[in-house]
Amino acid sequence: MSNIEALPLLEPTTQAVVPCCPPLTERPMTAEEAETAARMFKALGDPVRLRLFSAVASHPGGEACVCDISDVGVSQPTVSHHLKKLKEAGLLVSERRGTWVYYRVESSVVAAMGQLLTQGPAAA
Amino acid sequence: MSNIEALPLLEPTTQAVVPCCPPLTERPMTAEEAETAARMFKALGDPVRLRLFSAVASHPGGEACVCDISDVGVSQPTVSHHLKKLKEAGLLVSERRGTWVYYRVESSVVAAMGQLLTQGPAAA
Repeated sequence: MSNIEALPLLEPTTQAVVPCCPPLTERPMTAEEAETAARMFKALGDPVRLRLFSAVASHPGGEACVCDISDVGVSQPTVSHHLKKLKEAGLLVSERRGTWVYYRVESSVVAAMGQLLTQGPAAA
Repeated sequence: MSNIEALPLLEPTTQAVVPCCPPLTERPMTAEEAETAARMFKALGDPVRLRLFSAVASHPGGEACVCDISDVGVSQPTVSHHLKKLKEAGLLVSERRGTWVYYRVESSVVAAMGQLLTQGPAAA
């Protein structure tokens, strides 16, 4: 039974990608939009987590595993913990290959966050 | 003596604007850059604060006072508290006019945050 789990299946690319939200300058956010977006911002609101995120985002090939990240000054379990948090927030997706879990940036989500901070003429 | 304070001087537009940071996909962030940027993301990592930020950002004229914001479902002191937090994070600037303090978005800081989330070809 349990050997099904051992098959090298691709983990489904968590398709709960939120098309959140309009540029902040366009209109006030609804409570629901703010919940979604705040969760993503909060995930980046920790210096270590942000460094890890940028380490993954800037890694050659656009993906990295815990084994690639060693220069942030925290232990490997801590790195794993933070990467998991970033995944839960929808900012990273992961795929297991052999021993390691590889992470890459969920670019549509990051693009949505960037879009949110795009400024219209109103705030010029 | 104290009437100097009553003069309608423009509050200096807090020029501690941080040119933080390169796009996340460009290179891993340094510890210092991550500290700065995480502080800004953290400020937006609260749903109420995010709604208030978008209320200010999208308000006609690009600025708003507490008196303009009433539909977020929290009390006026709570609104003031959150706006102050956003100011401390460098995301809003304020100016007192008569009874009210007016807030507007510090567009260079928000632009820097947007820039941070800009994705290079590496993450495509």
